[in-house]
Amino acid sequence: MIGILNIAILGFGNIGSGVAEVLERNRTKIAEALGENVAIRYILDKRDLSDTIYGDRAVRDFDVILKDPEVSVVCEMLGGTQPAFDYSMAALRAGKSVVTSNKEVVARFGDLLLAAAKENGVRYLFEASVGGGIPLLHAFDDSLRGCVISRIDGILNGTTNYILTRMHDCASGFEDALQEARRLGYAEANPSADISGADAFRKICILAAMAWGGLVSGDAACCEGISAVTQEHNAFASRCGGTVKLVATAAREEELLSLSVSPCVVMDDNPLSAASGVFNAVKIAAGDLGDVMFYGMGAGKYPTASAVISDILAAAEKKASERPRLFTAYPYPLVDPAEWRTDYCLSVRCHRDALGERLPAYCVLHEADGVLDLLCEDISKKTLLEAMAGIEVLMLMRAVV
Amino acid sequence: MIGILNIAILGFGNIGSGVAEVLERNRTKIAEALGENVAIRYILDKRDLSDTIYGDRAVRDFDVILKDPEVSVVCEMLGGTQPAFDYSMAALRAGKSVVTSNKEVVARFGDLLLAAAKENGVRYLFEASVGGGIPLLHAFDDSLRGCVISRIDGILNGTTNYILTRMHDCASGFEDALQEARRLGYAEANPSADISGADAFRKICILAAMAWGGLVSGDAACCEGISAVTQEHNAFASRCGGTVKLVATAAREEELLSLSVSPCVVMDDNPLSAASGVFNAVKIAAGDLGDVMFYGMGAGKYPTASAVISDILAAAEKKASERPRLFTAYPYPLVDPAEWRTDYCLSVRCHRDALGERLPAYCVLHEADGVLDLLCEDISKKTLLEAMAGIEVLMLMRAVV
Repeated sequence: MIGILNIAILGFGNIGSGVAEVLERNRTKIAEALGENVAIRYILDKRDLSDTIYGDRAVRDFDVILKDPEVSVVCEMLGGTQPAFDYSMAALRAGKSVVTSNKEVVARFGDLLLAAAKENGVRYLFEASVGGGIPLLHAFDDSLRGCVISRIDGILNGTTNYILTRMHDCASGFEDALQEARRLGYAEANPSADISGADAFRKICILAAMAWGGLVSGDAACCEGISAVTQEHNAFASRCGGTVKLVATAAREEELLSLSVSPCVVMDDNPLSAASGVFNAVKIAAGDLGDVMFYGMGAGKYPTASAVISDILAAAEKKASERPRLFTAYPYPLVDPAEWRTDYCLSVRCHRDALGERLPAYCVLHEADGVLDLLCEDISKKTLLEAMAGIEVLMLMRAVV
Repeated sequence: MIGILNIAILGFGNIGSGVAEVLERNRTKIAEALGENVAIRYILDKRDLSDTIYGDRAVRDFDVILKDPEVSVVCEMLGGTQPAFDYSMAALRAGKSVVTSNKEVVARFGDLLLAAAKENGVRYLFEASVGGGIPLLHAFDDSLRGCVISRIDGILNGTTNYILTRMHDCASGFEDALQEARRLGYAEANPSADISGADAFRKICILAAMAWGGLVSGDAACCEGISAVTQEHNAFASRCGGTVKLVATAAREEELLSLSVSPCVVMDDNPLSAASGVFNAVKIAAGDLGDVMFYGMGAGKYPTASAVISDILAAAEKKASERPRLFTAYPYPLVDPAEWRTDYCLSVRCHRDALGERLPAYCVLHEADGVLDLLCEDISKKTLLEAMAGIEVLMLMRAVV
């Protein structure tokens, strides 16, 4: 007779209900993979679930879950930091593994939660918190862990990528594209965390911690959203041979860590340019392994639910990790965004002759009507702007080459 | 004091020596990840290694390795099926895990070797056999295993992808592009297994077995190489809105499995089109998880060596798998390629009016000089050609939309 793995779902919104649905739909495949049936023993939600098939399992008191020794995995899909953090910590301390799709709580408290998991011999897993359904975080614990990672570039927010794709394809303005995203359910009623880049910033902080172990506490200085993007940016990017995308980048050289979220010119031959609409993609410079990229649905009920379920299976099979992952608090200041040496596209009104003495190296991508579109690689924004003193800079965007 | 994991390397060519180099270069990172230092105890090769730093560890008699209880992981990088198969089988039976980059032996004998690994409580791992450095096979055992996979499309051969990219970018012919690939070391002296599609076919067989458990024995009927690709194909693909790539596809509906390797029109908005040159990419339709794609260096000394090392770490940490993966021999005949319902681009000399009564559904992609370029979805080649009876078909290629 096949065993039963009892789980509890905290939060029965879009993703929580998706987990229940996908567990039911893929019941046979999951039982085969795990050797046990997964049973939902409790669902914690403020809503009245008595009309649903889960009515008999609905609870409103988290203590019921905490005190039931039969529950071995708690799925936290509450969103926000509280009570998500308190519930997760209590569950770990009670010897239950916790899996989550909640990037806020991971980005803010991941170090504490991973430490608690280690102490209690259980798992804290959060594959679904970055890149939705993309099998990404597991790779850091597995195929990538012998590799020396130097840089991560990600299109990590489906809402903004949809808006920018729509602006590009339909030549629409930001507000129109946002309305369309809302209509299709790709943008929430209050999309400010998406639009401002804060959501992507949380996710790149999690990826940086996966790569290098140190969890950075938020730094808004590194974060620029998409609300100022216009058709002029699209036209400029197109002249440069790319498209505008909101790219989150983490780059590390020695002890220096740079983090940035900003609208960028992603060059057409960079594989990240393949991520359109609500798709996400993450490209990792993984030393000897070379560049690898992971692509998939960065959001959505079923992809995210599937990622949660892959964590449930991992937590069930390997209740305690032999070499548990820990995040430390990142001990150094981040590189000042203005000082970070990276790549830029800029549009300037000047003659070619005037450039040579100002810039050590550059590439002219387009020239018309006295306006030059340039690519300058491996330079800081500060140095670049100083070099351009007295020249009219019409456009300046980070480039992802 | 930190422990030591002793390994033996069979075959000290490009990849075998790459494993030794990367183990040395990433020594610190690997020891951190594993909690043990990895030591190369033996290298088996026909060449004289006495002039190298590995001279003291060179052996020519496999029995020395087999009989040394200190060796816990054997890395088989011999290529070809023999003696690779015999050595691997003997190592597994001696209680040593085996990791390999050898797709020939996996595609042909993977079922036997996985069964032997299970019987002996050790691992047989082959991440490097498909997609070089791309962290791909581990994902099937991990994030993807609760998912119902319906289709896999892969650009799985770097040599042919380089040649096709070169033909596209430089408008060169097949032979010229092949010469350039040889000059750059992307093509072997005898590249026939690459050019014919046989190499990509072995890899898609391995991926199909990872997805559905059944290992197909080779069927050349499904395999079409790139030697007949010309600039006419490139021009046709371009008019259709895509590029020519050698795509290996495995698709499953109920018990029906279709396998195909052929030059295809990959549409520009398909993320696989991002894989140029020697890069590989694999796109997987993973049910509720949605489409995911993995991209990276499909070949090359260091990427492949890095994938071998990730398997060494996995074999060391989890000497025996709790739920060992097995391949069965695939018990059903493959779908006849002519009967497989998929998507096609074709170029026909006819009037639009003549099409409606012949084809249930189609889309005109381009029209000029009495020639129509069409996309027909979800149709068999047989049905398509029957429908076109009496019409001049100028081009017909599988489409990857």
